[in-house]
Amino acid sequence: MAKQLTSRKENYSQWYNDLVVKADLAENSAVRGSMVIKPYGYAIWEKMQSVLDTMFKETGHQNAYFPLFIPKSFFSKEASHVEGFAKECAVVTHYRLKNDKDGNIVVDEDAKLEEELIVRPTSETIIWDTYRKWIQSYRDLPVLVNQWANVVRWEMRTRLFLRTAEFLWQEGHTAHSTEAEALEEAEKMVGVYADFAEQFMGVPVLQGIKSPNERFAGAIETYCIEALMQDGKALQAGTSHFLGQNFAKAFDVKYVTRENKQEYVWATSWGVSTRLIGALIMAHSDDNGLVLPPKIAPIQVVIVPIFKGKEQLELISEKVDGIVKELKARNISVKFDDRDTHKPGFKFAEWELKGVPVRLAIGPRDIENGTVEVARRDTLEKESLQITNIGEKIDNLLVQIQDNIFQKALSYREDNTYNVDTWDEFKSRVEKGGFVRAHWDGTSETEKLIKDKTKATIRVIPIDEPLEEGKCIFTGNSSKQRVVFAKSY
Amino acid sequence: MAKQLTSRKENYSQWYNDLVVKADLAENSAVRGSMVIKPYGYAIWEKMQSVLDTMFKETGHQNAYFPLFIPKSFFSKEASHVEGFAKECAVVTHYRLKNDKDGNIVVDEDAKLEEELIVRPTSETIIWDTYRKWIQSYRDLPVLVNQWANVVRWEMRTRLFLRTAEFLWQEGHTAHSTEAEALEEAEKMVGVYADFAEQFMGVPVLQGIKSPNERFAGAIETYCIEALMQDGKALQAGTSHFLGQNFAKAFDVKYVTRENKQEYVWATSWGVSTRLIGALIMAHSDDNGLVLPPKIAPIQVVIVPIFKGKEQLELISEKVDGIVKELKARNISVKFDDRDTHKPGFKFAEWELKGVPVRLAIGPRDIENGTVEVARRDTLEKESLQITNIGEKIDNLLVQIQDNIFQKALSYREDNTYNVDTWDEFKSRVEKGGFVRAHWDGTSETEKLIKDKTKATIRVIPIDEPLEEGKCIFTGNSSKQRVVFAKSY
Repeated sequence: MAKQLTSRKENYSQWYNDLVVKADLAENSAVRGSMVIKPYGYAIWEKMQSVLDTMFKETGHQNAYFPLFIPKSFFSKEASHVEGFAKECAVVTHYRLKNDKDGNIVVDEDAKLEEELIVRPTSETIIWDTYRKWIQSYRDLPVLVNQWANVVRWEMRTRLFLRTAEFLWQEGHTAHSTEAEALEEAEKMVGVYADFAEQFMGVPVLQGIKSPNERFAGAIETYCIEALMQDGKALQAGTSHFLGQNFAKAFDVKYVTRENKQEYVWATSWGVSTRLIGALIMAHSDDNGLVLPPKIAPIQVVIVPIFKGKEQLELISEKVDGIVKELKARNISVKFDDRDTHKPGFKFAEWELKGVPVRLAIGPRDIENGTVEVARRDTLEKESLQITNIGEKIDNLLVQIQDNIFQKALSYREDNTYNVDTWDEFKSRVEKGGFVRAHWDGTSETEKLIKDKTKATIRVIPIDEPLEEGKCIFTGNSSKQRVVFAKSY
Repeated sequence: MAKQLTSRKENYSQWYNDLVVKADLAENSAVRGSMVIKPYGYAIWEKMQSVLDTMFKETGHQNAYFPLFIPKSFFSKEASHVEGFAKECAVVTHYRLKNDKDGNIVVDEDAKLEEELIVRPTSETIIWDTYRKWIQSYRDLPVLVNQWANVVRWEMRTRLFLRTAEFLWQEGHTAHSTEAEALEEAEKMVGVYADFAEQFMGVPVLQGIKSPNERFAGAIETYCIEALMQDGKALQAGTSHFLGQNFAKAFDVKYVTRENKQEYVWATSWGVSTRLIGALIMAHSDDNGLVLPPKIAPIQVVIVPIFKGKEQLELISEKVDGIVKELKARNISVKFDDRDTHKPGFKFAEWELKGVPVRLAIGPRDIENGTVEVARRDTLEKESLQITNIGEKIDNLLVQIQDNIFQKALSYREDNTYNVDTWDEFKSRVEKGGFVRAHWDGTSETEKLIKDKTKATIRVIPIDEPLEEGKCIFTGNSSKQRVVFAKSY
């Protein structure tokens, strides 16, 4: 048990960092702010990618790939976008190194670029520059494209998965002939994200829109999903933007309508990133390590043999072969950990740390009795089961675990969501953590003042709730609905 | 037929460029040397990725992700590597832009990096810097990791897919406790590439090693696969490097052996890139457009209805629904092109251009007769078939097409491979194109002189052939085997 974690109570932030490193998910690299995603962490990302990619294709999208570099001048074309993105970014200025007279490798000043290139922080500009060539007529619309890519934002304070200079993500970029169709697309895709978070990651999310302060730079409306972490802080898990005609106007993308008129094209963009892995960790994990929902776990079942000597291991392995076949036939991913370099107790702790949903342990007595010990990662409960029909039993158990992980997170969120109507209660509630539903007068000024005084921001303005008359928690001015405040990652 | 191509005979290079652009595979972007991979081109890449990724996992590899940026000093640590890679590269020097006094966006000189960052041209250095932390003992070995990523090499003359500043690839990086194991890995992976090229892409390849002149910068031995294009030029389609202990020494990666001694770790690296799409195009396509092998085709079967008016289309669509279900049940990807904006002739030409292996056409007379017209893209042959058991018939046809495409390319290569024993014949043969098998005295000087005089390089030194005494084609010095010369991409 060399890899023990700091407990969540003791130091939540340290617990998170310990867990990410000790569970072999990621680590800091030699490049400031850039992480190495280790094989086990990357396997989780691959599971997420695979599910999301299927969902995108089922909703009519195709993948494509656009350049990593964006000419500096492109950022100036959409006024609010440049403010949001072009400032803290990696700038390529030269294209050659050379040996100086002392033999050191230095930048070759003769190889200076005429126009600097920005390493993409997001790709709206280069993509809309391309769409100008793709779109002439209503027949060319809609364009429904997604890109899986790396992006770079020069962050000063970084945390593994949650905020890194380089991260992996997908960015959807769609072009439409009408405002209504683009709005529908933006709403549809935030819905896809919500389904993914809840049904696969087991993370309940609030859906809604952002206040102007929190909107994407260049968007008319930003839809989002927000999740509540175990320390009571909110985490924005995905966003979908209705961009209006902003980028079409900036990059002169027009189409000829059925009525033979020239119109600007309507746009959306939407993305989720490796940040989701951070959300997954903080939503479910405990002081023993990761707790992975079965649908996202790279290994769903691990089998640990309890044996002394080769003969016993062979006897057990024979039995395990049958179990492995039965599980694989049901598309359950299973690992038989037959290393003879480590003891069962070490293996139990390691797979607990790595969040494998189900652990089977099988020893000589189990062989005699036709049993196997089944341990659930989510509840840490153990029971002895007959091996007969073990495939079906594990299949059912995985469904139960997936459901239980979601229900537990949902109960946590419900227990930590508060309707608050006075400023004093608001301040103390926000300080303790949780989603705080309060009235707000709708102005950016008030939102900023509240943020200055409490660090809380409006995480989401619900869109599917009945309106409710009330008075702003801060100014007392009239309000038509509660919005959700919280401190956030 | 607005999209007609230049013919191969007329101008092979123009034919290639036309085809890439008109078949919607890729196009040049606003960023010099960087391409946009369009959805249809990217779908081919996704098919390739999916097959290769499965092959890598079946051979025990896991995916991970390492930083895009590499500190400049890392390149200086392996002497020959820096010569090969660090010269023509994208250099990040600053991390912020700002508005100048005229409101223009300029680089903020206060945000200059202490050490410049290089956008990875290949990742050996950053990965071996990481492996130092991962590897302490023989128990940590082997490390079998692959990365799917973008890389940048500042190329002056670029061609879509074949040579671009930014491209997509995979790079495997493995670490081993013995030289023998690393050599075995390097050979195994070039074998995986050869299987992929021949069995999936339908492209026959020569396997062997590179001469020192053509070796990867930092490798002890470079294994490669080489394919012959229809213009008689060779294309290097994949390489696998035995790196010895070069990078372990440069980055101080040692391990403790079973005997408790400290040893440097042995390394390999191997990669294929979006260049494979260029190889696929040039190996099989014709003057009508792409010819895709079924195993790599994003769409394997397209169905075009021949109809006048809605009623006929509905009648045909009903029949087509059944065919589509039958094909999908066999995992055949199928598209029903029921657009009413284009005529059948236009559609035929479009899908021919895009290389869909099988086209079905179905009109009112076919409905009456229970038939369908089946056209093969590879031979352009057509026949009328009974619809009964159409799934099985198409399945068999796709197998035939896959095989025929490979056999055709193999015959072409055999017809264009020559044993040559005199310098005059060598010069004229190389000029005409093809693989030229000739004796070589084994020196880099001779290879360079031959290249200067003929533009031909040694594409591959065969490793599985019996040795044969002979005299060098250029110097007349003694030689123990024929090597394969060609002009190349």
